[in-house]
Amino acid sequence: MAESKSPSSVLASVLPSVLPSGLLEPAASAAALKVAIFGFGTVGSSVARILCDLKPAGLELTHIVNRNVARKRVDWLTCPIVWSENPEEVLSSGIDIVVELAGGLDPAGQWVRTALEAGKSVVTANKKLIAAQGVELEQLARSRNCQLFYGAAVAGGIPVIPGLQQGLAGDSCHRIEGILNGTCNFILSKMESGAEFADALAEAQLLGYAEADPTEDVGGFDARAKLAILARIALAAEIELTGIPAGSIVPISAIDFAYAHELNCTIRQISRAQLGYDAAGKLEVKATVGPMLVPQASPFAWSRGTENMVIVTGKYGGDTVFSGHGAGGHPTAVAVVSDLLAVARGSKTPGIVSHRAGVSGDLLLRHYIRFIVRDRPGIVAEIAGGLARQGINIGALLQRPGHSGERLPFVVTVEPCATSALQRALSEIGRIDCLIEPPLDLQILEPETSGS
Amino acid sequence: MAESKSPSSVLASVLPSVLPSGLLEPAASAAALKVAIFGFGTVGSSVARILCDLKPAGLELTHIVNRNVARKRVDWLTCPIVWSENPEEVLSSGIDIVVELAGGLDPAGQWVRTALEAGKSVVTANKKLIAAQGVELEQLARSRNCQLFYGAAVAGGIPVIPGLQQGLAGDSCHRIEGILNGTCNFILSKMESGAEFADALAEAQLLGYAEADPTEDVGGFDARAKLAILARIALAAEIELTGIPAGSIVPISAIDFAYAHELNCTIRQISRAQLGYDAAGKLEVKATVGPMLVPQASPFAWSRGTENMVIVTGKYGGDTVFSGHGAGGHPTAVAVVSDLLAVARGSKTPGIVSHRAGVSGDLLLRHYIRFIVRDRPGIVAEIAGGLARQGINIGALLQRPGHSGERLPFVVTVEPCATSALQRALSEIGRIDCLIEPPLDLQILEPETSGS
Repeated sequence: MAESKSPSSVLASVLPSVLPSGLLEPAASAAALKVAIFGFGTVGSSVARILCDLKPAGLELTHIVNRNVARKRVDWLTCPIVWSENPEEVLSSGIDIVVELAGGLDPAGQWVRTALEAGKSVVTANKKLIAAQGVELEQLARSRNCQLFYGAAVAGGIPVIPGLQQGLAGDSCHRIEGILNGTCNFILSKMESGAEFADALAEAQLLGYAEADPTEDVGGFDARAKLAILARIALAAEIELTGIPAGSIVPISAIDFAYAHELNCTIRQISRAQLGYDAAGKLEVKATVGPMLVPQASPFAWSRGTENMVIVTGKYGGDTVFSGHGAGGHPTAVAVVSDLLAVARGSKTPGIVSHRAGVSGDLLLRHYIRFIVRDRPGIVAEIAGGLARQGINIGALLQRPGHSGERLPFVVTVEPCATSALQRALSEIGRIDCLIEPPLDLQILEPETSGS
Repeated sequence: MAESKSPSSVLASVLPSVLPSGLLEPAASAAALKVAIFGFGTVGSSVARILCDLKPAGLELTHIVNRNVARKRVDWLTCPIVWSENPEEVLSSGIDIVVELAGGLDPAGQWVRTALEAGKSVVTANKKLIAAQGVELEQLARSRNCQLFYGAAVAGGIPVIPGLQQGLAGDSCHRIEGILNGTCNFILSKMESGAEFADALAEAQLLGYAEADPTEDVGGFDARAKLAILARIALAAEIELTGIPAGSIVPISAIDFAYAHELNCTIRQISRAQLGYDAAGKLEVKATVGPMLVPQASPFAWSRGTENMVIVTGKYGGDTVFSGHGAGGHPTAVAVVSDLLAVARGSKTPGIVSHRAGVSGDLLLRHYIRFIVRDRPGIVAEIAGGLARQGINIGALLQRPGHSGERLPFVVTVEPCATSALQRALSEIGRIDCLIEPPLDLQILEPETSGS
């Protein structure tokens, strides 16, 4: 029989390795475009694999560039390849498209610039580069009449960027929220199932999801770069990366998931940006990245493992959700190959008309604040007083039984308040003598319908 | 303050009605393209509204065509409009793009053909037309060097078609599953919350989600047309619409949700198509539309109200989920305006290289079969015998207490078996004298990881 109980595994073995795809159209009569991959790691290798498997007409992989390229050679490539350690030489050869997968600002940025200046199109997964220099690089591409695609820079294989640029172009988006870092999502969903942070991080490192130094991921810096890219595409706003407050998931512990659960929530690293106004009435972007309490009814709560998820809110279309594999060689390579096909098809990058905008993390939201104290009478009164002096109302007070008074965790939730006011209150409260750890402050992601 | 507790409602009132959008780029120096809307109902009116609000450069709404057009006139259009009852006259005028929103095969199909033959691009939401004649109409558009876009034909405002054609073009998809009919999803999710079918349908009709004659929706025919369109784009397969078995949601009752719940499932109308082989080893599409048992852990179970959701499974990218508002004037209009912007930008419809393929509903799946009987000894033995004679194993037998023996509902689940074998068994079992209703047979949607 052609089918069995586990269709996907059987399909994988039964179907021909080259499945028909409706989208791999033959190129126009022109010769195939010569493609060079710069950076032959996990994603680069997957891109080469897909190009060899699917053999899309109009594209020809000709060069692979990497340091110490000898140790990168593979024997499964079905086309003749020039292996090189010399980026400049390959850039000045007859290639048509540069696939930049080395990452980082330098030297990758210089390769991209050199390629575009020579009129060669570029496909990149480099979020750092695009977040920092995307506007300028797009101008360069336009001026040289070539293309710069970066669908793989955000949310890996999930077509969020093409979705925004093509399918939601007719809407007017005012908010974008997402789980943009698969490493954090893996760690937090492991913790949700009972793991402690250190063990979840160690497992992520073992599985190759987290770097030896995980700061970029757990500190929110990777997600912040992706958020800046999405803000430009969805909100037309060019915002200063460093203006977005980034919170770390490191202080989250098992007790926070227990308390979150009592509030019908879980915890996810959320990146959000929305249009708003500053005190002077000027349009600005309210943006923030960090661990947040997410209602169990929110799609974000369903996202597990290394998944990414993006929710775009438009004036006309309401909420649109995209989710899938946000990381990993193959899914990211799908985005790269899709962009290569767009170049081969003669598609033009939609010109993004964006404007510089201020950015502020001062959102009006409910917060979850977890304290760990050496218990004594009067603590709650002191905390309540500190909050009241900033005009902040307490919503709920949660204290689970079974903890020693020597190290007592409890939680206060506060009604919607400005982040700045809460920070002033917490700075005062932080001086209370019996605090064993600094208070942990998490925003609560409100569902659309909540007016609290 | 610019913000309050309910950010979205406040934003709607505070933000300027024309939000900046990064994707409404000014057209090249060329004159704006003249747009005519054919069919000024809910979607047509929303398209006009968005065009007036956003004023995208490169597009100019000039004509509105409808029968009895006088009763359609509105006073909020900000541009001079020719109102017409004469499609032929408008088609032969100087318009550049036809927005076809009349629906149905005729006369809408003739208008689309006339427009394309004259080299005018067409944007349509007409699923019936595209499902039946999409291949031929695309060829016509290509031969006249104009564009045919139909992003609004499937899943309303959710960018599934652009997502597949742009962002997942680099993958090789072998399965597509979806909740493609908002009316059925509204009715079934109401029933999940305790409503009976008739009441849920009445409410859907009252809210304008269901037609007076709901057969197209509840019978699965609307979803089937959308599935055929998606199968062509995702699987490169041209399949005969009528070859896809369509099951109705009408026989579903409250008791089925109760039993589904015991199996950790709920019930949704699911459309699915996947690549497989026929008995002769020839590639074919296994496709089916109808109510199915869906595990609570599946994203489909989270879909409520009139939402649509599509899950695409690719060889490299795995599962990608799209969800959002699949119906309604504004969301559908977003897809139409996005397509208009694509035409204005000079984007070319990706040429779909598809092939005719056989279609079969004979999937190897677990099934839920609900019986309603006048109780007497020996019934289960007779049912088990009928199943055994076709080589089908029983998985579980569920009988909730509290029902009269005069009208006793119970459920049998069967292990994965061919649909055809089960149909033979049910045809024999259907002759058992004490059955009060024909058995209700629902497929069980297996999660990816289940090997059962």
